[in-house]
This record gives sequence, structure tokens and C-alpha cells, in this order.
Amino acid sequence: MTLRENKPEEEMPVAEMVKNAVGRLVPTEVNGKAQTPFLGVGKFEPTGRKVAPPIRACHQYALDKRAPSMRAALEKIGLRDGMTIGMHHHMRNGDQVAVALFDTIAEMGIKDILFAPSAVFPCHEPLIKYLENGVIHHIEGSMNGPVGKFASEGNMRGMGILRSHGGRYQAIQDGDLHIDVGIIPAPSADILGNATGAYGPSACGSLGFALADSQYADHVIVVTDNIVEVPCLPWEIQGMNVDVVVEMEKIGDPAKIVSGTTRLTKSPTRLLIAKCVADFIEAAGYLGKPFQAGAGGISLAALAYIADRMREKGLRAPFARGGSTKVLVDMLNEGLIGAILDGQTFDLDAVKSIGEHPRHVPTTPFTSYNYHGKGNWAPYVATSVLGATEVDVKFQANVVTHSDGYLLHGIGGWQNTLFGECSILAFPLFRGRIPIVMEKVTTVTAPSEMISVVITERGIAVNPQRADILERVKGKGLPLVTIEELYETGHKMCGKPQPPDIDRHHPIAVVKWVDGTLIDTVYKVNS
Amino acid sequence: MTLRENKPEEEMPVAEMVKNAVGRLVPTEVNGKAQTPFLGVGKFEPTGRKVAPPIRACHQYALDKRAPSMRAALEKIGLRDGMTIGMHHHMRNGDQVAVALFDTIAEMGIKDILFAPSAVFPCHEPLIKYLENGVIHHIEGSMNGPVGKFASEGNMRGMGILRSHGGRYQAIQDGDLHIDVGIIPAPSADILGNATGAYGPSACGSLGFALADSQYADHVIVVTDNIVEVPCLPWEIQGMNVDVVVEMEKIGDPAKIVSGTTRLTKSPTRLLIAKCVADFIEAAGYLGKPFQAGAGGISLAALAYIADRMREKGLRAPFARGGSTKVLVDMLNEGLIGAILDGQTFDLDAVKSIGEHPRHVPTTPFTSYNYHGKGNWAPYVATSVLGATEVDVKFQANVVTHSDGYLLHGIGGWQNTLFGECSILAFPLFRGRIPIVMEKVTTVTAPSEMISVVITERGIAVNPQRADILERVKGKGLPLVTIEELYETGHKMCGKPQPPDIDRHHPIAVVKWVDGTLIDTVYKVNS
Repeated sequence: MTLRENKPEEEMPVAEMVKNAVGRLVPTEVNGKAQTPFLGVGKFEPTGRKVAPPIRACHQYALDKRAPSMRAALEKIGLRDGMTIGMHHHMRNGDQVAVALFDTIAEMGIKDILFAPSAVFPCHEPLIKYLENGVIHHIEGSMNGPVGKFASEGNMRGMGILRSHGGRYQAIQDGDLHIDVGIIPAPSADILGNATGAYGPSACGSLGFALADSQYADHVIVVTDNIVEVPCLPWEIQGMNVDVVVEMEKIGDPAKIVSGTTRLTKSPTRLLIAKCVADFIEAAGYLGKPFQAGAGGISLAALAYIADRMREKGLRAPFARGGSTKVLVDMLNEGLIGAILDGQTFDLDAVKSIGEHPRHVPTTPFTSYNYHGKGNWAPYVATSVLGATEVDVKFQANVVTHSDGYLLHGIGGWQNTLFGECSILAFPLFRGRIPIVMEKVTTVTAPSEMISVVITERGIAVNPQRADILERVKGKGLPLVTIEELYETGHKMCGKPQPPDIDRHHPIAVVKWVDGTLIDTVYKVNS
Repeated sequence: MTLRENKPEEEMPVAEMVKNAVGRLVPTEVNGKAQTPFLGVGKFEPTGRKVAPPIRACHQYALDKRAPSMRAALEKIGLRDGMTIGMHHHMRNGDQVAVALFDTIAEMGIKDILFAPSAVFPCHEPLIKYLENGVIHHIEGSMNGPVGKFASEGNMRGMGILRSHGGRYQAIQDGDLHIDVGIIPAPSADILGNATGAYGPSACGSLGFALADSQYADHVIVVTDNIVEVPCLPWEIQGMNVDVVVEMEKIGDPAKIVSGTTRLTKSPTRLLIAKCVADFIEAAGYLGKPFQAGAGGISLAALAYIADRMREKGLRAPFARGGSTKVLVDMLNEGLIGAILDGQTFDLDAVKSIGEHPRHVPTTPFTSYNYHGKGNWAPYVATSVLGATEVDVKFQANVVTHSDGYLLHGIGGWQNTLFGECSILAFPLFRGRIPIVMEKVTTVTAPSEMISVVITERGIAVNPQRADILERVKGKGLPLVTIEELYETGHKMCGKPQPPDIDRHHPIAVVKWVDGTLIDTVYKVNS
């Protein structure tokens, strides 16, 4: 079987497909680079040394690193055709830098840029025209929404490469993904390039996703709408890694960067599932142990239940990894948790807290998630509560494509947090009229041994590979079922869903495991 | 002219000596590595990329990284003959780790270790026996006191290499100095290796000198006498860079790590000089600008005067770089300075402050001093007040040897801070019966253009190369003199000092400039 790049026909490289450790076909080469198929969890042994940026010298830099415009900055660092640009997504759907950046690059007449942000969002739909006209060659990064649809329909030159947050750090650190220019939108910065996300009109909290770009890119440009007095404290991004500072009038739309307030779900089904998650965590003896907190509806609602129960029992967890929100901040202030290790800051209360509370600290994909480090935070948490687009009867899970084959989500920290002691996927049994528990997931994003428990409104299925967890919860009155029962219930009620209408001769993206190996391939949807 | 290694005769390499940009002879090769002579300030253009450590993977590490003993830790990482060990000196003269470490290495029968700490102190005198019996091959790092004397008398195999704090970071970053094993004494740490110096029975404040070892060494061992709950916050050293954690009963003697209290000098001469420094800073219009603060007697006393004058005039400096002490902490709390960027924490008040005040932050040689970065903090300060062992009539300065030729001091941050707008050397005109202003310094540690002003109890000499500073202070009633006048006064009162009795065919150490080039050579003292 061969892999052909999708468009234009003449440019298509031909790559062999091989079967990996979860039985999925993956290409041996992607965008001209050799790839390793997924070998099993913890089976790939990396070799060699990390990459490192060029050695510079102080006398090459002015004390005030500001360039008068984005164009001047790009000219200064020598942007040219075919370079790779990295960027973080802490501005989320409120980002106003990426589109302005590519407007400038288009004006400069530069083309074939590999854009490698940690994620793009619906606000980045205007980038599609640059994918079409050749300014951007392709995107390697999470493609949420319209850009994902564009790629799914076979319209992107080059293959998409989906990496987890930890996987992006790993890829940059190990040299799999070389960033020529790191663009770092920063809510506050000084003239040296020291930068923080904790305050400023476009405050976003942690800037952790930008760390890899700041450390490893050949050239680093900080973009801010709030220059502050030297020294900018705390300096989450260190000016001594920064080449140029650019001022823009506005780097983001605050209302779309963080929520004003955290709203808990009012859906009775989701509340039921959340309560079930809390019951499970309590029954399994995980209350009061470190946990991973998310901002999803069920995860947040479960957190509120968990806080109540910890309070009742006088328990305190040493720390929580987040995904920080008002719910988590209140737990910190009340003393229910000892610290928040914050990867993304989701609401205004959390942004305020990270700027003020000494035990609410930003983390980065290096500390939290990088699998090619000397450990990371993920296995130190007892429980993580996550979503999924599909799970199958082998407990394999999908988080990137829908059952119609469309690539609409990134991996985020999802793969990384599965390394906690007990990973919980919690979701309603149906989405629309489509059951979530499948015979076989469309795209394997995690192998079966990484999913400990599936919790739905129709019962809790513990992965039979986790006898230790079954032992913890048996006889505790929980609604335990098998994954096959969840599958049957779903399919009885909805009927067997249509298989996705995809072209298996036309891969459009690959999905990496946390160690950089390929766990699955995403194919063109016949539209 | 040739350079011979001092001992034993059979092992001596022969290296050529060449004249550098300040007219000093320096070897073309040191300890088997090619060297570049000093070319002038800002003249050496580095090439290539930084070095980077081996790629590791999470599954290679246990969640609890503790080894049962130092020996077990060294065996785990595979210490063997000829390896290089790095270590920081934040434990100063109270360190109890280095001697215990080499006792263990000696027991293991390992030899020829290159010991590359940021500095050794008088407490490290017991290491001399390991230099003599071959456990340690030689030391590259500041040699304060007995070890410096041992080297000066030609007893050390290999050449000493003296680097500034920034220079040590540069050398490790650029691959000039490869650290096989970084040993990091840590006043508090968790089982992952996250570590801080801010609290614990051996609290020392900032751990910044350990950053290079943690980032670039192949293997990193954290040594602590205070294991704290996960997560250790703040994590100045990140566990994801650490291989092994070792517990020792006691890593240091608190009384010798930091002073209990800061005592201001009572010497009338030093107080007079300090007042003269404050007069100069005020007259030159530098009051209220960022400054470098030290812990030396004159520097601290000057700071107290400066604080008074800032208070009187209602001035506030955006930040001070330190060398933090109670005097500086009081200025921060009073609002006279906006932040303390702390490289070394010298007394208990400062240790408490760095643990609590959000604008008293630890800095590292990367942010503060590394000349091969994209800028550093040094040129952002207006004034720095420093000492010297000698200055000559060309304004060349020496900080490593005494006029008798003995190597008794390290460079510290001295070379690095000279990059401030106005560098002030302040000292009494005589030390013992030896004048400080010489015809020619014994060892050039800084070239003449880096010294702006010399201030003594007998007048202020501005470097004629700094017409801008002369312009600032002329006609302001300051006791301005020429450097020649200071030289004459000193020599008239003390007589011409004996030239050092040294063997110019027997170099024992080299002195690096901040960019890694050789600025001078230190020779054996005939004892």
C-alpha cells in the first residue's frame, strides 16, 4: 500500500504503509521525514542528543529589542520561503496574531511556510486562503474546526501531524520538528522580551506552550500589546531567548481568550455522569490524592462534587494539575488542594490567581507532559477525567476524529494525562444520534491499556486489564457494566452508525503517540 | 615560548604561547583543548550551536528517584575515571557536600575526576589530599583560599581555568566545558528532584549557579537534607532535568552559608570611600537608575548612603541586581526599588525575602551574565560598585591574584557586571602596606575600557576613555584626580612594591574573558 500526498498530484511522494503495534497502517515517511510506527507504550527507546539553537552573543543585540513592525521583525530575522513558524495557542479562539502575521507574510511575497502552532481554532479560518494560495504549505498542529475540515476534505498540501501538548515539546526538543521562527504572543512583555501571560489587557494566564519555541527556535519574536517597565515579572518567557519584540495594538479579544466566569453544566445527563465520576473516585479511594482537572462540562461538574466530599471528609490533595478555573482556585484558597500546577488558564478568576497566589504556578509541556524527559507530572496524579469522541470495545480511544471521519479536534494534553494512575473517560453514551462506544474507533489516539475506566449515564466499565482498579471498587454499590454492555445499549438505541465515507488511499494526517511514533493515520473524507 | 603542564613531568603537554589583544601571553591549548586568545571586547563571534544533553524517556525513571546513598547514586549514573563533575557554590563556606562526595569517590577507587564547581572555598581544603593522590585530576573553577594557594605553588596536575559566573554558563552551554555529572546540593527537594534554596535547614536563597549543570550535564544528582511533599515549590531546579535524588543528614553549616545579619563596616576609611561613591553616583545623575548591589563592605555602606539620598529625593529605581542583603530587602519593602534580581542571597533577611516577596526573584547566570545569549541583565544597570586586588595606570584591573602572584580569588560575577553603564572600582589605596594602583597589574582580569571609575579615599579617577562620564561629573565639587596621581600617592607612601616572585615558564592557570577567550595566564609562585 502506498501513501500519496494529496495535492497537487505531481508533487506527491510515495511512502510505504506499515502496520503498527495496534494494527493500524501508518506511513514510513511523512512530509519527507522517516517515521517510526507505534511500538507499544514505553517500547520506543530514543537515542542521540536534544537539539539546540545557534550560539549568539550579547553584542549582536540592542538593549531595546523592539522592531517598528511585524514586517520589520520578520525582515530582521530573515524569514524566507519554506521556513517553519511555531506559535502557542494560549490566546485560544481570541487570537489576533496569527492572521495578522500571515497577512504580513503574504504582503512580503513569502510562500511555503510550514505553520506549526500548538493549535489553531475557528478564529483562524482566514488562514485557509493562505493554505490555498501557497503562503502556508501545510499546518502541523491541532486543527480545531474549519481548518480541520479543510484538511479532512483533502485540500491541504503536505500531511497534517497531530501531536499532544507533550508530543509537540518532545518533537521540538528531539529535532523531529525544527522551528525556524517562534512567534510568541505575550499579554505583557518588556523591551528585552521577558514576557508573562498573567496580566495585561489580553491576559491569558500560563504561557507554557511557548516554552519549546523560546528554547529551541533559531529566532524568537515576542508580540505584545502591553510593554511594561523592565523587568517584566514573572518572566515566564525569558528575554535572553528572544531576538525581537514587536508591538501590536491588540493581540487578542479578551472575551474569547478566557471565560468571564465558569459556568457549570445544567444538563441532567452530564450532571448524572459527573456524580457517577465522583462516586467512582470516592469508592476507589482516590479522594485526597493528586488529580488532573479539566475545563470540560462533566470534568468541572465532577470537580464540584469532589470538592464537597473532600470538605466533608476533611481531606486535602497535595496538588492538582489543570486546566485552572474558579472551581479549582476556590479549592486552593480553601486549602482542599496544596497547589495548582497550571497548564492552561481558563477563566478570569484563574488568571487573577496565577498572577497572585504563590502556589498557583504555571507549568509547561516540559514539566507536565514531555515523555522524553526525566519524568513528567502526569504519572504523579491519581485520577484524570477526560472526554473522547469514540471508545471501542477493546478500550482503544479516539479524540481527534468524529465517527464521520472528520478531523475536528486536536489531542491537547489528552494522551499525556492518560499516564495518571487511573484515567477516566466520561461521556454521554450518545452524541447526537451517534453512539460513542464503537466496535472499532475511527482513529486510535490511545491504545487500550491507557484507558482505565469508561463512565457513562448507563454505567461504569472498568478496563479488564486493570484488575487493580476492579479490586478497589467491587462490592461498593457502583453501577458496574462491561464495555460490551455499553456497546450493545448504544447500538440497540441508535442502530449501527454509518461507517465513515473515507478514502483509505488518501491519508491527510497522522497521529503521533507521546514518544513521536505513529499510532494512526487520518484519511480524506469523501465530501 | 612553551607551556608545560606542571606535574608529573612525563605527562606535560607542550603548548605555544601567543600575545592577546591586551598584550598578555596566553597558551593556544589548555588541558588538551584549543583556545582563542582575547581579541578585544565584543570582537569574538561565536559559531555553531549550543550543546544539549542526551534524550531520555519517562519509562527509564521511577516516580521516586531517591537512591539510598551517594555511592548508590554515583553507581547508578555510572561514574568512572576521568569524568567531569560540576557543582554550585551557593552553600559557600558552609558546604558539606563536596568533601563527602569525594570521600565516596575515593572509596569507590575512581580517579582523575575533573572537578568543575562554580567555586571552592576554604572549607574545601580537605580536597587537597584528593588533588595529591589522583582522585581529582584538577579543578576548573574559582579557587578561593587554600586550594588556590596549592595550585599557585605548582602542585596541581592540569591547568586551572578561571571563569566568571557568566563565563561558566557560557562554557557549559557552548560545549567548552562538558559536565558528565552535575551535583546539586539543594536545601529542599522532592522525590522527583524539583528543588529550591529558599527554605530548609540549609537554606541559601537562589540556586541559580546550578542551572547550567541541571540543563546541560549528562547526569544530574540532587543532594538534599530536606525532602518535602511533591510538588517542591518554587522549583528553581526542575525535576525533569534530574536523574537521581540523594538524601544526606546535613548538606551544610547554616552559619557559614549565609550571615545571620548584615553588618555595615565601621572602618572610617571604608565609610569615607562609600560616601564618596554615593557622592559620585548622585553627581553623575545615576540615582534612581537600576544598579548592581554587592555584599562587600564598601559596596554595602555605599548602598545605605544611596538609599538615604533616594528617600530624600523621592526617587525609585526600577530594579537592583544583587547580591541581596537586608539593606537591599529593606529598600524593596520601602519601595525604593521595584524588584530584586537575585544572583546570590547573602543573609537571613534576604533568604526570607526571596521565599516570600513576589518581586524578589532568583536569577541565574543565564539571565544575568551569559555573554553568549541574546542579551543579559548586566548592561541594563547604570552603576556597579566593585572591588579589585589591583588596578593599573591603564585602568586594567585584577581580581584573581594578589601582587605577590598568589591566586586566591575567583572572578565571580565581577567581569560580567562591568558591562553596566558605569563600573566603579572602590577600594582603599593600600592593602596592608601594598598600594593597589600599580604600573601594571599582575593578572589582567578586565581590559581598560571596562573600568569606568576608580574611587579611593584619596580621590576619584575617571577613565579618560569615558569622556561621557567626565562630562556628567565635572564642576560638581567631586575630588577628581588622575589615575597617575593615585599611583604616585600610593607609591610615595609605601615605596615600590616587590614584583611577584613567579616562574614565567610555569603557567598554573588561565583567566577567561566573558566570551571564553583567554585574557591572561597565572604563573607558579616560587615558594
